[in-house]
Amino acid sequence: MAAVLTPEILADPVALTRALVDIESVSGDEQEITDAVEAALLAAGRLSVSRLGNVVCARTDLGRPSRVILAGHLDTVPIADNLPATIAGDLMYGCGTSDMKSGSAIALHLAATVAEPAFDVTYLFYDCEEVESERNGLFKVSQQQPDWLDGSFAILLEPTHGLVEAGCQGTMRVIVRTHGTRAHAARSWHGHNAIHDAGEVLRRLSAYQARQVTIDGCAYREGLNAVRIAGGVASNVIPDRCEIEVNFRFAPDRGEADALAHLREVFQGYELEVTDSAPGALPGLDRPAARQFLDVVGEAPVAKLGWTDVSRFAAMGIPALNFGPGDPNFAHKRDEHVEIPKIRAGAETLRRWLTTPAD
Amino acid sequence: MAAVLTPEILADPVALTRALVDIESVSGDEQEITDAVEAALLAAGRLSVSRLGNVVCARTDLGRPSRVILAGHLDTVPIADNLPATIAGDLMYGCGTSDMKSGSAIALHLAATVAEPAFDVTYLFYDCEEVESERNGLFKVSQQQPDWLDGSFAILLEPTHGLVEAGCQGTMRVIVRTHGTRAHAARSWHGHNAIHDAGEVLRRLSAYQARQVTIDGCAYREGLNAVRIAGGVASNVIPDRCEIEVNFRFAPDRGEADALAHLREVFQGYELEVTDSAPGALPGLDRPAARQFLDVVGEAPVAKLGWTDVSRFAAMGIPALNFGPGDPNFAHKRDEHVEIPKIRAGAETLRRWLTTPAD
Repeated sequence: MAAVLTPEILADPVALTRALVDIESVSGDEQEITDAVEAALLAAGRLSVSRLGNVVCARTDLGRPSRVILAGHLDTVPIADNLPATIAGDLMYGCGTSDMKSGSAIALHLAATVAEPAFDVTYLFYDCEEVESERNGLFKVSQQQPDWLDGSFAILLEPTHGLVEAGCQGTMRVIVRTHGTRAHAARSWHGHNAIHDAGEVLRRLSAYQARQVTIDGCAYREGLNAVRIAGGVASNVIPDRCEIEVNFRFAPDRGEADALAHLREVFQGYELEVTDSAPGALPGLDRPAARQFLDVVGEAPVAKLGWTDVSRFAAMGIPALNFGPGDPNFAHKRDEHVEIPKIRAGAETLRRWLTTPAD
Repeated sequence: MAAVLTPEILADPVALTRALVDIESVSGDEQEITDAVEAALLAAGRLSVSRLGNVVCARTDLGRPSRVILAGHLDTVPIADNLPATIAGDLMYGCGTSDMKSGSAIALHLAATVAEPAFDVTYLFYDCEEVESERNGLFKVSQQQPDWLDGSFAILLEPTHGLVEAGCQGTMRVIVRTHGTRAHAARSWHGHNAIHDAGEVLRRLSAYQARQVTIDGCAYREGLNAVRIAGGVASNVIPDRCEIEVNFRFAPDRGEADALAHLREVFQGYELEVTDSAPGALPGLDRPAARQFLDVVGEAPVAKLGWTDVSRFAAMGIPALNFGPGDPNFAHKRDEHVEIPKIRAGAETLRRWLTTPAD
């Protein structure tokens, strides 16, 4: 039997968070929760509802001059013996409470209860955010239904602990390799030690001065770090190969090509292989809808130091920011939880923004 | 049916090498070859023959003023599609031809054919040299029958390509560890990168000036090398731990305690764990039997740059050197082979030494 999200539950973002948390939806297993969300959106009666796999899209069509997007994923990382949800004082515990069923609950609550928004609104609920990019529901929409992403501004309800986190850093992973010549360790002068050569790569990393750049008032701090090192053939052999995996987190004023050019400069003289890359997202806080949102929030935005799906909106030219009640420090943890007052406050802030007449 | 080493075969060290090679004897499977060797030694009629597992010991008891030891192992590394032995011109191919059935064949040939040696001689044939130390036949003898190792000088017929390689280096392995603090790679300044810290360890290794020391005319060159490095938690996490496995090959004028003290000095400030250690062996070329052997050979000895079982003799106070016909560069290789003239030359040299009246 499909779970039912009653009007009473939909009217209360806290009850709705709990109801969504209690529908298990580890990445790849989102059928039941998506069915429940789709049914609730259809029941609202004022929305055009579409579905693509386990992505559901609900749109108002009120002829407003601009359209905004509220988006959240419905999947979670694997359960860690932390379901069903439990409440202790002001905290709700359970898998997905922070990342990000409390955020998605706010969006669904607003979809069900805000009849006359000042903007046209697209509500997007999607699957497979916690797994590889090709399975990501928002990525599939961008490929197969890009019209669902039309809009002038997007808010992703990923956990930010109630802060406005604008844009996001880009991320690039490269493998830096050193090469040597094998020899027996008892006659090491016949070889050349590739692990010793990695010392210079690590020296450059240690000496690296990370850039900090302020964009739209948000300070993006970059970082360049070895995240893995591996070398060695056998305990009596001079190793002929060592590899260092380096992760570069870069401010969104750099594109991926620029990031790579920078890494080539830092690691000049070494072989470099890019294994992973995703662009950042500029905060885009100059857009009218963004400015209005910030006016309602009344707090200065900060830079998102991490990579999120806002980058997918940015890649389509839509400024996007992160704003959610969850505490990102508890995402993916066994003791994952959300502060209940932050759910209520987040819902109120977004309701005020959506219902304040545009300038 | 057990293989039979006939008097004709025993009289010819080349034929004997081939016969021994054709008895498969990968470490742990030496019963058949040991039976054949034991039978041949008993058939000689002049030797006291004892056995311990798959170790066989044959001694002359002629009341000579000094006793020397000739030793060789009977096991091989796994067959690599290279049996039975084949002959091509001056080369005999096959598993064990170099390491070290040609050497053991010379010892067995001499045991069978030298009736009146100038020294009393102990011939030792043992198992499991190619595997872990605790299974090594010579190690077991040192524990259970140390009297079999009585003597003033020992020759191990390990492959040296006909050179006299004196003593051996010691070897020690340590793991050097660095410690940091985990953090998300997008906010790396909250953590401390243990891989970056490994850079200083590698810098010290790169800058290390290995010592060379001459003992009894033999130049021992030391070496200090990373043989393995490993660090990393996940591709988005600042790593909190990195380990570097370092192999120190040290000249035999250092003991193990001295070697470790030296490593503690080189890696001062870092956690260090010893994972493996074996002492070197001094060449001991000042002993009369050694000097007589060198006179017969007529060539200057060189240092053994590697670790061999001579160290087990050295640990019991018996100087020992390596002298065998095999080419160590082809040991353990699919195309393992021995130069047939080196078998004949080695047998002749040893026969001359054993039969030259002592000073």
